Order: sequence, then C-alpha cells, then structure tokens
Amino acid sequence: MSQGNKTLRIAVDAMGGDYAPSEVIKGAIDAAQQGDIEIILVGPMAILQTELAKYDVSNLPVKCLNADEFVKEGEPPALVLRQKRNASIIIATKLVKAGEVDAVVSAGPTGAVVACALTILGSTEGMERPVVGGPMLGFSPNTVVMDYGGNVDCKPYHLLSFAVVGSAYAKKLLHIPNPTVALLSVGSEEGKGNELVKESFPLFKKSGLNFIGNVEGNDLVAGKANVIVCDGFVGNTLLKFVEGLGGAIVQWLKVSLNGRLPDAEVDKLKQDLLAKMVGADLVGGAPLLGVNGVAMVMHGRSQALQFTRAITQTKVVVESGIVDAINSELAVVKRQLDCAKN
Amino acid sequence: MSQGNKTLRIAVDAMGGDYAPSEVIKGAIDAAQQGDIEIILVGPMAILQTELAKYDVSNLPVKCLNADEFVKEGEPPALVLRQKRNASIIIATKLVKAGEVDAVVSAGPTGAVVACALTILGSTEGMERPVVGGPMLGFSPNTVVMDYGGNVDCKPYHLLSFAVVGSAYAKKLLHIPNPTVALLSVGSEEGKGNELVKESFPLFKKSGLNFIGNVEGNDLVAGKANVIVCDGFVGNTLLKFVEGLGGAIVQWLKVSLNGRLPDAEVDKLKQDLLAKMVGADLVGGAPLLGVNGVAMVMHGRSQALQFTRAITQTKVVVESGIVDAINSELAVVKRQLDCAKN
Repeated sequence: MSQGNKTLRIAVDAMGGDYAPSEVIKGAIDAAQQGDIEIILVGPMAILQTELAKYDVSNLPVKCLNADEFVKEGEPPALVLRQKRNASIIIATKLVKAGEVDAVVSAGPTGAVVACALTILGSTEGMERPVVGGPMLGFSPNTVVMDYGGNVDCKPYHLLSFAVVGSAYAKKLLHIPNPTVALLSVGSEEGKGNELVKESFPLFKKSGLNFIGNVEGNDLVAGKANVIVCDGFVGNTLLKFVEGLGGAIVQWLKVSLNGRLPDAEVDKLKQDLLAKMVGADLVGGAPLLGVNGVAMVMHGRSQALQFTRAITQTKVVVESGIVDAINSELAVVKRQLDCAKN
Repeated sequence: MSQGNKTLRIAVDAMGGDYAPSEVIKGAIDAAQQGDIEIILVGPMAILQTELAKYDVSNLPVKCLNADEFVKEGEPPALVLRQKRNASIIIATKLVKAGEVDAVVSAGPTGAVVACALTILGSTEGMERPVVGGPMLGFSPNTVVMDYGGNVDCKPYHLLSFAVVGSAYAKKLLHIPNPTVALLSVGSEEGKGNELVKESFPLFKKSGLNFIGNVEGNDLVAGKANVIVCDGFVGNTLLKFVEGLGGAIVQWLKVSLNGRLPDAEVDKLKQDLLAKMVGADLVGGAPLLGVNGVAMVMHGRSQALQFTRAITQTKVVVESGIVDAINSELAVVKRQLDCAKN
C-alpha cells in the first residue's frame, strides 16, 4: 500500500448515500482537482458517464469501473454479500484487497460497508469487528472517542482492543506520542461504573497503555484524556446527541442574534460553533479501524463538500500508516486479549 | 402527607453540600420568605444557631432540629447507616417517615441520601432502587429522561419500571395527559440496539404505556417522546456530558461576542443558553422516585440560589401527588414486572 508523498488511488462507491451519484461524483471531482489523488468511481457505467459528462474531467485523474448493482438502505448486509456480488461497494472493496487502490470511500448503508470490509479485507488479528471513532468534539480535538460505531454489546477485552486502536489513532492521526487512555464511567474512582467498566479497569491497568483511570461525561468536553473508551451504544448515543444539540444551538444562535449582528457575522459564528461541536461530521467520514485496509464510512446524507473532505481525509489516513500501527500495537496486547477472552 | 394549597413542612439537611451550612441556610431562608413553606433545618444546634444569627428570622417559619453528626463525601453509605445514627440526613429522612414533614432536601453525598431514603422510607412496590430523572434539556422541556441516577446495570424490568415512573412524572409534573414513551437506542427500528434494549422492547410493547418505539440520541434534543428510557450509565453520562458542554459553549459565546454586544446582552444570552441546555441544574434538585416519600437530591456544589429553587420545587413535587401516582401506576404493571423478573 502506498505511503509517503505519492499519488494515492482511492475507490469511491459512486452509488452510496442519499445524494448518490450526483453529489458523490461532484465531490470526488473536487478532491481530484486538489492533486495527488487518483479517483476510481465505481457504479453502473451508463450512470457514471451521464454524470461525468456534466464536467470537464479530461485532465483529471478520474476513472470509472463498472458495477452493475448497488445496495439500497435497509437491505440486510449478509444478503447483499451473497446475492449482490456486483454491487458497487463490493467491487470497490475488492480493489483494496487486490492492492489496486489504497482505500475505499462509501456513504452507502453502514452495515453493508462494514460487512464488506470485514468479509473482503478481513479483521485485524485481535479484533472481532471494526470500530469507528475519532475526535467527537471540536472543543476537545485531541480526544479520541472509541467506539461510536455499532459495537453495542461489549466485553472487557473488546474495550481493551478499542483502547489500543484509539491509542494508535491518537499517535498516527493526532501526532500525540504517548496518548493518555481513560474509561468512560459514572465516577472517577476505581470501582465506580457498570459491570463492564469495573471488569475492564484491571485489564486496562496492566495493558501497558498510558491508562489514567475513569473519566466522566463532562471530561469528554474538557478533553481529560487523549483516548476515551466506551461501548458503541454509549458512544453512538453521545455522537447523535451532540449532533442534535449542535443543530439546536446553532438555530438558537441564529434566532438570538438576528438583527443584533450583521448576517455575515452570525453565519461565521454559526460555522465556528459547529466546528467546536461536531468533529467528525466536518471531516466528512471516519475510517473503519480494525480491518486490513482503509475503508472510510460516511453519513448517508453526505453532500459534495463532505465527499471532498472525506476523500482528502482518506489520503491522510492512508499516509499515516495507522493500519500497520494498529496491527503491531494489537500484537503487543495479544496475550492479554486472549486471556481475557477465555 | 399534605396535598393542596396549605403550608408544607420541609426538612433541610443543613450539613449537606460543598457550601454547607452557610449557603444551605441562606437558600432555605429565602425559600421560607416566599411563603407557604415551613423549614426545619437539621444539623448540630450550635452551628445552626451561629448561622441563623446572621439573619432576622424572627417572623419566618424556620425551625432547627439538632443532629450531632453529618456525612462527609466519600463515606460508605452502609457504614453511615450503621455508625452515624445521628447524622443530619438520617434524622431529616426519619422526619419524613414519621409524617412530621412532607419532604427532605439534601445536597449531601448522593449515595448516602439514596441509602437513607431506601432504608428509612422504603422503596415503592415494584422498584428495587430509586431512580432520578426529569427533563434534561431546556430545548426539550417536555421530555423526561429516566434514569440519570445511578442504576448502571439494568435488566429489562428495571427499564420498564423507569418508564412507569417517567410516565407518572410527565403526567404529574409536566401535566401531559397521555405521555409518549420511548427506548433510547442506536436505531429507531425494532431490533436495533443492545441486548438490554432489544429484550426490553417487547416488554414495553405490551405494557399498556403509550410506547412509540426506539429513539436515538438526537431525539433527546428534538423531544421526540415525553419519556425516554435508558439505563443509569447512559443517562448519567449524557447528563454530565451536557453539563460540560453547556459550560464550554457559554464560555465560547462569551469570548466570541466580547466587544461586539454590550456586556449585559451577552450575560443575558449566556443565561438563555444555559436554560436551554441544563434543565435540572436550574431547578436545583431532583426527586428520588420510587421511594415512599419525597426526598430531593441536589448537586454537592449547590449554592443558596439552588437551595431556594430546590425547596420551591420540592413543594411542587409534594403537591403533584407523584408518589401516590407512581404507586398506583406500578401496581398496574406489577404482574408484568414480576413475570419479567423471574
């Protein structure tokens, strides 16, 4: 897989997302214009060509690869894998596996994207399912929250693997040399928390990670640790909560400042506040971590701007070497993970 | 217990909280001045008298009751109950049990307040431990979140009892006749969620409650249901998260608007925003629900204003008849709770 300052090849699932294919392709073209990225759009050739005809891409590194089918919202991922072998997300992910591209980007149904990554790329040794995480708030840009993907029922060894992945994320993507790691709980003292946290605490203590103990909900905002670990039920709920809250507060700000400051200043303040609140959304997408390759998942409602950002971020993720880092860091705690599992 | 528009008697743990006894007593006196409330301050008599000497309370319904001891932060509640029989919170709670007061208010260590309520007042039939909940956000004032107290490891029948309590809260304190009830989850469809939510769903469906299914984190802000049920780990984390976020956003607002609007207007906006974000904090305290009597728990860091508000809110809670309502509503689902338990 490519590393360093060379052109990366990124497969984009042109049929994934609520605004596919038009917004996907618009965003991909914008990303290609920024240089150092070659885009392979994957989808039904006729549709791709109709969309591409709207732009002058003659001098851009944008290619097309045919995929007859695509996945619709609500289709069971297992069924997709068995019955839609020519779906755009499957063909795009296979390009990563074959080493023909460095990464895949999709705003298609998350379940299907995860299932493809897991089945086609395979999970990193030590992981059962990929995790999704990263800085959740602009207020605490150096705090990675793991997991806010879908790992809802966790055992202590799952949380430990999330911590390892989060630690690699903080090192490779946030450039923090020795990231502090904490468990999210309802009290800071050892012994406070639910069964999962209480059982995870001793495991974390002897993990070799830079574990600083439990933190609480408010500490997510204060950025009290570089990696804050929780199960995917808690993390996903927090992520959606802050997204909803961000929208409501921006709306409140608009109404409250209307007529008191010039519109342009109010708009600027709204953008500033959103950037403080919603970390991941502004980047556009998040890498699925714990699979053998780079697969970026995006919000279904992503538009061109988010696709451009996600593709640009994909380049950063690939070049960071985080996939290899996760592999080698998981190997260090492998024995401990195995013991905790059995 | 008193109902209707008569003078209520409220026992106040004068030694509970980071700013006890001075702020407790100041706040209690302010509450007494508003009328219709008689205050019984509980604590070491010499301390109470020294504090009271700072005010002219000759015409106010403020009395003192001696309690030689008090509970310090970090003392194990079980030990307190065995070894500190003359602690202010114990004596104050016993006044409720004896029918000598209508309610007890304390900002002492929550664990001790809960243990006293549970041991002295007893839990409502159908409840194992009291819950704490209420509107979490000013953005969604008609949405009760249960539990944000400390019930961290829950079974489906616990969640059902929280739903019943939340429903009684919405009826009696928010005056919503037929409150909608939802489970907090990571997806709105039936079958989405962790084991706890998935097992609770069918139980909720046949409960007779006005159950509308699953809602997600953003729906807490949008107020998609009148009662949103989660375990106390999730609820407590969300509560602390929004408290932290409220503080950070208010600080951001202050810095961002500094010099662009008059100070008084910025202050007003800060207050408005806090009121939108932090529901419970502004009231001052929350009732422990699921015990046979009214016991209000408060933040340890409460100051006079919060004590005044909590005492005033206590009057509302007592007069609402919520304790009786919880009793009778739990009786309706009793058979279902018993079946789910076994």
